Amino acid sequence: MSKPVLIVGAGPSGLAAAHALARVGQRAVLVEKAERLGGAPILSGYAKLVPSGEWARDAIGGMVRRVETDALVEVHARTTVTRFEGGPGEFTAELSDGGTVQAGAAILTTGFTHFDSLNKPEWGFGTFPDVVTTTQVEQMISSGQGVRCPSDGRKPQRVAILLCVGSRDRQIGREWCSKICCTVSANLAMEIREELPDCHVYIYYMDIRTFGLYETKYYWRSQEEFKVKYIKARIAEVTSDGEKLIVKGEDTLVKRPITIPFDMVVHAIGMDPNVDNKAIAGVFGVALEPHGFLARGSSYAATAETSRPGVFVAGAACGRETIDDSIAQGHAAAATALAIVRPARASA
Amino acid sequence: MSKPVLIVGAGPSGLAAAHALARVGQRAVLVEKAERLGGAPILSGYAKLVPSGEWARDAIGGMVRRVETDALVEVHARTTVTRFEGGPGEFTAELSDGGTVQAGAAILTTGFTHFDSLNKPEWGFGTFPDVVTTTQVEQMISSGQGVRCPSDGRKPQRVAILLCVGSRDRQIGREWCSKICCTVSANLAMEIREELPDCHVYIYYMDIRTFGLYETKYYWRSQEEFKVKYIKARIAEVTSDGEKLIVKGEDTLVKRPITIPFDMVVHAIGMDPNVDNKAIAGVFGVALEPHGFLARGSSYAATAETSRPGVFVAGAACGRETIDDSIAQGHAAAATALAIVRPARASA
Repeated sequence: MSKPVLIVGAGPSGLAAAHALARVGQRAVLVEKAERLGGAPILSGYAKLVPSGEWARDAIGGMVRRVETDALVEVHARTTVTRFEGGPGEFTAELSDGGTVQAGAAILTTGFTHFDSLNKPEWGFGTFPDVVTTTQVEQMISSGQGVRCPSDGRKPQRVAILLCVGSRDRQIGREWCSKICCTVSANLAMEIREELPDCHVYIYYMDIRTFGLYETKYYWRSQEEFKVKYIKARIAEVTSDGEKLIVKGEDTLVKRPITIPFDMVVHAIGMDPNVDNKAIAGVFGVALEPHGFLARGSSYAATAETSRPGVFVAGAACGRETIDDSIAQGHAAAATALAIVRPARASA
Repeated sequence: MSKPVLIVGAGPSGLAAAHALARVGQRAVLVEKAERLGGAPILSGYAKLVPSGEWARDAIGGMVRRVETDALVEVHARTTVTRFEGGPGEFTAELSDGGTVQAGAAILTTGFTHFDSLNKPEWGFGTFPDVVTTTQVEQMISSGQGVRCPSDGRKPQRVAILLCVGSRDRQIGREWCSKICCTVSANLAMEIREELPDCHVYIYYMDIRTFGLYETKYYWRSQEEFKVKYIKARIAEVTSDGEKLIVKGEDTLVKRPITIPFDMVVHAIGMDPNVDNKAIAGVFGVALEPHGFLARGSSYAATAETSRPGVFVAGAACGRETIDDSIAQGHAAAATALAIVRPARASA
């Protein structure tokens, strides 16, 4: 029997990797620091996912159950890896729960940390209760509560979604684009309009990055079917006149200052490197790239490789990623790890 | 010995799938309609690839050699599949070269077709010899010839790259975004500036979609290090004053008409569905999505699935895709196909 593959992090990418391995009869040990499996979509209570339109609790929840009930996957929740030694085919990992794993290979699917909007104070989060994040609006929807102003529970009549909060912002050291917030925000805007047909929803943007087939499914449809309005703008600040939130900025298409009142302002928060990345890099002996994500080899011939042989990486751990690409990368890392734990030519 | 997996199309995604299978001792039959393997990066003579920076002939060429020299991969070039019957675990494929393959599963990595700029006649391609496509500029660079005006071989002093040619354009039935042209164009602009330091390069855009970490590596670096200029504009037409090409349009940031002379105009062409997709869908009995790409199941639990059980899909065949994601998806499809040809629990 071949040694198991150690997978660290039970979000979409790690769950996909574990399933891909178990499906071909390969054992996996899945270690997750949180109490529950599922990663950000489950732990942060996402609503309907892009682009499948499935509810997170169904889609990712189903992936969790599939792995939890698989005899070939040994799950350690509330657990971290404290020590990791050896080489390809013969790694030894010590776990915080006292366990030890002899693994043939390892896959790091340790994900990201949501940007904390308190780091962008001039945009009102933490000062005004009706300035919220996309994650909070997801939770309002997925909980069944509905989209309501936190200050007094009223239905908002005017909502502004501000893109690139914690992304493309050199001032606060987040130079990267978070890739998926434009599309997630267009989706969220349609969900708000669906629940509250009288509510006006505006999206403030720098560029709309609904790449590929997201263009029609999210950007165009949100405008044409759902009448979501898009304003290309640089935002200066979010204040309050005591009654409404006021978004001040410059409309970069007409080169004029604009000041518009809203009931609710939503920060489309970006994806920071996992706050634990330095510790993870230390334990596993893998390199970080300059922004602090886990470094993935750029050679096409070497999918999913980190700087350490036998240790692979997938998903948002190596930079912001979509859920479907995270899942594809999880499968890819599993396929790569498999080549180490199953002697390649023996079974031909 | 388990049945082989049939892979149709030997671009990055198909090559990755074949390698992923062979590496774990699984046989594959790789069928490619062209004379050479490698897909668009090789057949169209791409230069340095995004984001690895490797030359296409080295990076993808290396993937080709790895597969061609692998005893577990049976390659049929200049060949198509003419008939495909059966179900998971027991497909039969007839090939145009007279061969027959008994396959356990199939992976369609049949790629895309470059947009033909003749379908956007008002932008000058086919009328003026110095209006070229990104692919042609890639070929000028990869051949060692250098970037020259086709009309008289001179080094251009001013180059305009027009984004979204055959993308995001309802008028000509291409509503999708081609995902990678913004980044490829920023990369190409830097390559032009590197070869011709005195040449001014302008990029005309609607939105700049250098998502994720491409933001700093391509968009910012092209402006800050390479002085590439970006103009947000709607382009009306490309004409000529007899000496220079004239790009006419409206600068959408200042709301003014702009008319600028150039020596060379480059169309950043998009990715159409493979022209053979209807035939492919017919032979394999799989569905197309509304734009004409191969339809891929949107459920996260079912990576790489087409509408037909046992037939999987990866890469640009299901819509424009980057090379690295195509490769990850190729691996993912291989991992999924493996579960069919290797009885799952037997080897645990």
